[in-house]
Parts: sequence; structure tokens; C-alpha cells
Amino acid sequence: MDKKTIGIIGLGLMGGSFSLALQKTSDRYRFIGYDHNKSHCDEALKLNLVDSIATDLSEIKKCDIIILTIPVDGIIKVLQNLTDISSSTTIIDFGSTKEKICASIPPEIRSNFVAAHPMAGTEKFGPSAAIDDLYTNKVVVLCDIEQSGSLQKRVAIDIFEAIQMQIVFMGAKEHDRHAAYISHMPHALSYSLANAVMNQEQRDSIIALAGGGFKDMSRIAKSSPSMWEDIFRQNQTNLIEAIESFQKELKKCKKMVENQEWQELNEWMAQANKLHEIL
Amino acid sequence: MDKKTIGIIGLGLMGGSFSLALQKTSDRYRFIGYDHNKSHCDEALKLNLVDSIATDLSEIKKCDIIILTIPVDGIIKVLQNLTDISSSTTIIDFGSTKEKICASIPPEIRSNFVAAHPMAGTEKFGPSAAIDDLYTNKVVVLCDIEQSGSLQKRVAIDIFEAIQMQIVFMGAKEHDRHAAYISHMPHALSYSLANAVMNQEQRDSIIALAGGGFKDMSRIAKSSPSMWEDIFRQNQTNLIEAIESFQKELKKCKKMVENQEWQELNEWMAQANKLHEIL
Repeated sequence: MDKKTIGIIGLGLMGGSFSLALQKTSDRYRFIGYDHNKSHCDEALKLNLVDSIATDLSEIKKCDIIILTIPVDGIIKVLQNLTDISSSTTIIDFGSTKEKICASIPPEIRSNFVAAHPMAGTEKFGPSAAIDDLYTNKVVVLCDIEQSGSLQKRVAIDIFEAIQMQIVFMGAKEHDRHAAYISHMPHALSYSLANAVMNQEQRDSIIALAGGGFKDMSRIAKSSPSMWEDIFRQNQTNLIEAIESFQKELKKCKKMVENQEWQELNEWMAQANKLHEIL
Repeated sequence: MDKKTIGIIGLGLMGGSFSLALQKTSDRYRFIGYDHNKSHCDEALKLNLVDSIATDLSEIKKCDIIILTIPVDGIIKVLQNLTDISSSTTIIDFGSTKEKICASIPPEIRSNFVAAHPMAGTEKFGPSAAIDDLYTNKVVVLCDIEQSGSLQKRVAIDIFEAIQMQIVFMGAKEHDRHAAYISHMPHALSYSLANAVMNQEQRDSIIALAGGGFKDMSRIAKSSPSMWEDIFRQNQTNLIEAIESFQKELKKCKKMVENQEWQELNEWMAQANKLHEIL
């Protein structure tokens, strides 16, 4: 049986980890990488993330499956150049926003396209960050799936099930609102926390005391600015709304501390505890 | 050689983990537990966190070393009842705030007392949360150490070195300012984040998408309200100041997103990245 070819545009954490995960499940795929960053291409080959590197986008267009694991603005750009693919090709993007991406797909390849957001990642990036269990048991959101072709829908579901992801279906608009609360706004908090501490005169003495709580809260402030600039831009309205919801809670907390409303503060903390009955 | 006796007031995560850690290093200690919660006493015995349970505080007062691992308001209360200990007894508290505790020590036992804050913990609590490596390679801050007796200073340093902690010396006032930034304010953020999400109409759909970032950011929102109510009360002024520093950064972030100042946003994120060159 001929191997299926998978073209991966963007050889970083997400694309590399996807290849490693799929390689564990089967040897019936051939992976072809594509990345503007030459050293990422060399590294991806060396780490066996891909079998070969495409020097031109036309090679990727011939693949059975095309995976877009680049920043979200890049996804929109590259989609415009994929209009001449075969009707049996499946394109899957892994972007953290979905509404603007779904709106930007050229109509002639709309059925080729599956909009996916795997809720997985680490603060690390580049090919060397790739790990084979990044996606295991994590959620992947497939958006506006009724607009994908039935073949493409099947291909995407099979591949995400193969790497043991839990599939959730959602509209792109709803996804972006939810992602703002669960991922994008928390990144804004983590960056703000890191900068608030960095701006203190005695920052080195403060940071010397960092325990597990602070390390957890500031971990995602390591994330790539160029990737997150794009996400914040594409999800601007929802992000602002989520930040405002958070600000309201923090203001409430501060007011209770200022007014010494300790019983109310205790109840507010107990309310937050309840998140973990659900999570 | 007679065993040294260590009285542990408060048989939860901190006290239990301390006993387990010290038991690994030597068998020359005998641990006596004391806790208002009867079931915690039974559990601590069963889990070998202590060798026996004291039914009266007078038994604890006879110990060579007394460890206070209870909420910070409780520490202040119990210190008032320890004034009749021997001059060779060492009392060490593990509270997360230090200024009010140091100010509250009865003068007649000031030299017996060592104010310590181990920068370690998990969001779990109770005897069953105790683990033997909680403190390993973590920082412990010893405050106003010049006011402790030379014997007590030696006892505390030896014991924290034995469980492989890194000792940092600091004034109590400075400690509380720093702890507000590195620990207390981040707890306020985590509780606020949890409540912001919990208050959303579609909270279950939102929480279903939680990835590693959100789980990390909301982990410490599981922490005990009664413990953290006390900490927020004792460190009120510093906490408010730290929250305001954070609010300033988040406001700046929101403004850049609103005004579409993407280049500035990118630089602000890159600035936050730099934390991790220090941390």
C-alpha cells in the first residue's frame, strides 16, 4: 500500500509533536515538512519529525493531508495560496482562533478544510520542543464541521482519534468566545503578572522567593510574542470582554480586602474552589 | 542518646511533610502531634506523620522543638500560650506572613522563636496531602533572625539544611512585601480567574476546553479559604499594593489590544518573557 503523505507547514512544537504522535500509531504515513526557517527544517529532519523537506509549496500541495501549524495570521495567508489543490486533499489548521480563519478560506477549497484547535501546548517552541504525547487525552475542538467535505471530516476525525484526542464540535464564533476565557485571557494575566514583578525595584529579591504557585502562574508568560500577538489581534473583541470579566472579580477581591470584609472574602474564595469540582 | 522531641502543632500538608522529610534524614527525633481536628490526629498517626498525639498543649511545651504549621492567625494566638517554655526550646513557625507574627511574640520567648516561611506548598491540605519531598531544594526565608537566640538560630538552620532547603535571610517587613508579589497577589489572581469563568453562563462548555495553561493558572484557586483569608488579612497593605501593580499591567495590555497597538503589545510580551532568564 502506498503511504499517505502529510505535509506539515510549520515545524515547531505543534507540528513536530503531531508527527511524533502519529508515527507512534502507524508507519503508513510519509511526512513532508515546510518552514520559512531553514534551521528549523534542518532540526526537524535531524529529530525525525519529518521524512523530507519541501523546498517549494507546490510539493506540499500534492500531499493527501496538509497540516497548518503556524501562527494564526500565517494560516490566513497560506490558505490563499492553496486554492489549486485536489478535491480529495484535506487541510487541517491547528490555530488558537477560529472565526477569522474560517471566514478567510477561499470558497473553492472550503470543503477541503477542517478548522481544528487542539487544546494542548507548552510554553516552549521550535522543533526541539516537540514531544510525542503532547496531544494524548487532550481535547481538540473541530469548528463549523458542517462546512467541511464528508471525506475531509472523516480524515480529520480518524487522525485525531488515532492520536487519542477527545473531539468536541463547536461553532467558530462560540469557540473564540470560549477560548478567550479559557486560554487567551489567562495568557494576558500571566504576561501582566510577569511584567508587574519585573517592574519592581527589588525584582531579584522577589523572584528569589518564587515557589510553585508563582512558577505555574507565570509559566505561560514564556510563550512566543509573535504567536500571541496574532491571537490577541484575531480575537480582540472576545479577549477584551474576558479581561473585563476578570477585572471585575479582581476589583471585588481588592475591595473586600480594603474594606476588611473577611467573611465575604472567604465565601468568594470558597466559590472559586468549586471550579475544581467541574474541572 | 535520647531522641530529640519535636512537637508539631497543625497536622496538615506543611507539618506532615516536614515530619516525613526529617524522618528520611535521621531516626533521632520523636514527633508529637497536636491538632484541634480529632480526625486529623487519627489520620496523622495512621500515616506515621507523628509517633504520638498530645492531648494537652502542656505536652508540646516540653518538646525540644515546637513547629507551628497552622494558619497565620492561629500562630499568633498559640504563641501567647507558650510563654512558660524552657529557655532552650526552639519554636519555629511556618506562616506565609511574618510582620504581624514577629510583632506578636511575647518578649519573654522572643529568643526562643525563629520566624520561617518555607516557599513550598501544594493546593492540597490535610494530613493525607503530606509528601516527603515537599521542601527538597526549595527556599525557606528566615526573618529577623538577629532576634532569635544563638542556639535557636543554629537549631533552625540545621534542621532546614537537613531537609535540603536553601536558606534566605530577610527582615519580616521586606519578606511580607516580597511575598505579596510572589505568592499572595498571584493567589488573588487565581481565585479571580476561577470566579470569572464560574460566573459565565456557558461555564461548562468553557471549562470543557481547559488545557494545561488554564489548569496551571487556576490550580492555586483550590487553596483553603480559611488559610488564605488569614494571610490576606495579615498582609492587607502589601497585598493591595501588589494587586494595583498587576492591575496597571493588565490595563496597559487591554489598552494596547483596544487601540490595536500590536508592535507595543509584542514588545510588552517579550519583556514578560525575560522573567524566565532570571527565574
